[in-house]
Amino acid sequence: MLIPLPKTPLPSPDAITRALLDLGRTLGDSKVLTGDACATYARDESEATGRVPAAVVLASNAEDIRRTLTIAESTGVPVTPRAGGTGRTGGAVPVAGGIVLATDAMKQVKEINAKDLLAVVEPGIVTGDLHALVEREGFFYPPDPNSLGSCCIGGNVAENAGGPRAFKYGVTREYVLGLEACLMGGRVLRTGKRTVKGVTGYDVTSLLVGSEGTLGVFTEITLRLVPKPPEVATVLALFEDVRHAGAAVSRMIARGLVPRCLEMLDAATLDAVRAQKVAIDPRARGMLLIEVDGEAATTQALLEQIAEVLSGGPGLIDLLAAQDPAQRARLWEARRALSPATRKLAKYKLSEDIVVPRSRIAELLEGVDVIGADTEVRHLTYGHAGDGNFHVNFLWNDDGERPAVDRAIEALMRLTISLGGTLTGEHGIGLSKAEYLPLEQSEELIELQRDIKRLFDPKELLNPGKIFPVRPGHGGC
Amino acid sequence: MLIPLPKTPLPSPDAITRALLDLGRTLGDSKVLTGDACATYARDESEATGRVPAAVVLASNAEDIRRTLTIAESTGVPVTPRAGGTGRTGGAVPVAGGIVLATDAMKQVKEINAKDLLAVVEPGIVTGDLHALVEREGFFYPPDPNSLGSCCIGGNVAENAGGPRAFKYGVTREYVLGLEACLMGGRVLRTGKRTVKGVTGYDVTSLLVGSEGTLGVFTEITLRLVPKPPEVATVLALFEDVRHAGAAVSRMIARGLVPRCLEMLDAATLDAVRAQKVAIDPRARGMLLIEVDGEAATTQALLEQIAEVLSGGPGLIDLLAAQDPAQRARLWEARRALSPATRKLAKYKLSEDIVVPRSRIAELLEGVDVIGADTEVRHLTYGHAGDGNFHVNFLWNDDGERPAVDRAIEALMRLTISLGGTLTGEHGIGLSKAEYLPLEQSEELIELQRDIKRLFDPKELLNPGKIFPVRPGHGGC
Repeated sequence: MLIPLPKTPLPSPDAITRALLDLGRTLGDSKVLTGDACATYARDESEATGRVPAAVVLASNAEDIRRTLTIAESTGVPVTPRAGGTGRTGGAVPVAGGIVLATDAMKQVKEINAKDLLAVVEPGIVTGDLHALVEREGFFYPPDPNSLGSCCIGGNVAENAGGPRAFKYGVTREYVLGLEACLMGGRVLRTGKRTVKGVTGYDVTSLLVGSEGTLGVFTEITLRLVPKPPEVATVLALFEDVRHAGAAVSRMIARGLVPRCLEMLDAATLDAVRAQKVAIDPRARGMLLIEVDGEAATTQALLEQIAEVLSGGPGLIDLLAAQDPAQRARLWEARRALSPATRKLAKYKLSEDIVVPRSRIAELLEGVDVIGADTEVRHLTYGHAGDGNFHVNFLWNDDGERPAVDRAIEALMRLTISLGGTLTGEHGIGLSKAEYLPLEQSEELIELQRDIKRLFDPKELLNPGKIFPVRPGHGGC
Repeated sequence: MLIPLPKTPLPSPDAITRALLDLGRTLGDSKVLTGDACATYARDESEATGRVPAAVVLASNAEDIRRTLTIAESTGVPVTPRAGGTGRTGGAVPVAGGIVLATDAMKQVKEINAKDLLAVVEPGIVTGDLHALVEREGFFYPPDPNSLGSCCIGGNVAENAGGPRAFKYGVTREYVLGLEACLMGGRVLRTGKRTVKGVTGYDVTSLLVGSEGTLGVFTEITLRLVPKPPEVATVLALFEDVRHAGAAVSRMIARGLVPRCLEMLDAATLDAVRAQKVAIDPRARGMLLIEVDGEAATTQALLEQIAEVLSGGPGLIDLLAAQDPAQRARLWEARRALSPATRKLAKYKLSEDIVVPRSRIAELLEGVDVIGADTEVRHLTYGHAGDGNFHVNFLWNDDGERPAVDRAIEALMRLTISLGGTLTGEHGIGLSKAEYLPLEQSEELIELQRDIKRLFDPKELLNPGKIFPVRPGHGGC
């Protein structure tokens, strides 16, 4: 356990007993795991380990969710919603035990509407499966978090997930037209619309997207689709130094060029890729992975402009175009394997997810090197350069190094804020970054959000301990 | 006064006296209008006339706003914020008198950041002036409400304004990165970010955008800019019938073609344009005004694809390309003049702003004709066909016709909802549509929004009577 759990109130043994009894009676025992079977639900893909839940509800429909949240509120037992369990900041980690509400069995695609370009889905469908499904019918769902092979749409909406294609297409919020959500206590809320435009009332849909499972549990999601771009092309640019890569990104943005992805890898990351036996020119100490899409003519024109901009600056070693889908797949395999590959480099790894204004990328990269040197913590950086969103990874082997890592993380957060940036671009605040929230947001803004949280969940039982720093003597909210 | 005012609580004469005294003492008499000078502030561009306010504060900076909202809450006097006063649903109409807080003198552009593609502005800058300013530097701010020559950014953000270019570029919300807002009582909130990506905490920025002046008054707005598209081309397609125009829109969307504007005018609207001495082929009973932008090569390719799709269906009479900026300007002049032109057709006009899924456009147009025939109310329809967002206008001359008009409006709202649509695409709910809100949203969702409103403004003094239907014995919220 690398992240200390916040001191949120724990449910009483009596409350647990009553909740288990009610759950079994209402849902049937086959949908309620207890005992040893619950152990794996204490964790997600973050470094945090929660308290093993007393029960895991395997919801198979909206009514299971409604009943669970009704029982939880009436018995006073906290609930941690979970979809794919692939989050990186502990969003699905049950910090107070209680009930984990698993929605990953709810995989129904209720509608794919070809005329209105929308899909209505349950929260448990795997993002990559949705991609495949809609692409077969000529449509495209752009958000592509790295974990798309195992993460679920419900979690993507809860965390407002991004991914490489966010540079051109935006993040999950821009594709959520409407939601059905169940609130703690069992109230059901339908928000949003089936039209691309609409300003009726407050934007409660956007409030729910990215709320990290603290406001409600999604039972149905209406997603906007776009037509599938007919052509895709990938280009790899190798640089003598990552700063030259950063300068090339700035030139592309200033020129108004919008590839769908604009990924950057630094020297240490390239070494990790090489260790996976991917052949990369040994002189390269910085790389851009660029992907364009659209109609054939547009794509070709954009590729030529990008090549011109890349060649027009210093430090370019080589420019390689993927000639076919197999080559494209190989390039992306290396990129997608980065997270597991870097995990192998050391016993422990923490991947941060900060964003800086795109004009400050060079300062960020220099600052990260200074932090690494000061704290003597090994680090590597890659990420969505087009958005200024970087995954700074800290690596270490010895438990004794942890205080230095904590200093490095705090220094990175402070650096990010000083550059006009934000703590998280796509992973959320969760458990991992709650203590840093006051670096970015004022006490007034945090208090207002705590008030909003209590409107939805007065007893603070839904995903406690997330987003907001825990105050002494208070719960997680 | 065509729209009855909701029965919101009125401030006591004592409260007004104390507020006036405090305002004069704190802001200086030059910033506080009273008496006859306040009369014009009882109205905006909607058909509603409010109660003449006791005072109008001409704010020249954020501190004026903070002081006004502090005094208003302590004395219990309602405040109606106002920017350009061009709203169509009564958002700036003071239903309870009190104070109008005018922000249109706050026109400062604090920053245009060329590297990070953003602008930081005060709420009073006229949208068209902002367009000109950023375009001179090579940037582009897409939202273009019809009133862009006189509406202000502050009002655009409050209403989440759209415009023709929303089809490609999206509405105001997609360009608001961050806000500084002052809440009733004087609390100042800074929300959002300066980066394109960021998921820290709840999306309070999106909650404030489109909140129609009921949650806070914007004192500073951080806007995302995009590079100015180098080429723009405009095409006019004339059809034998508006339904053929609708079918052509569906074909373009299915093909994935994204012009920046895709406007539709029906036969009655074309007659109104002809009455302005704009020459249009007399056979045309439906028209599409299509505009594309981008790099030269892309623009040309897109134009050719659009021409192919338009020619491939029935009912096309003619296809005219604007050959130069003067021709483009003339085409748009006719479109922009529609609102004043149609106003001249009758003594009274109400312009609705509904949205339907794009597959239901034909049903909407047929349904509107049925409503017109049933109620015998004259009507015409034009709007942003690409988004399914139509301005259905009802016209009448005799006060005695008003009950029939009310029946027509209600029938239109019910038709819209039955087609899976939404009550408003860009004008907001305001006063005009508050009574129809329960047609679209559940009691639970409306109650939750009332609760959110009270978090921001516990005494319900900020822009009372807007969005939510007034309950007997209650105020506007």
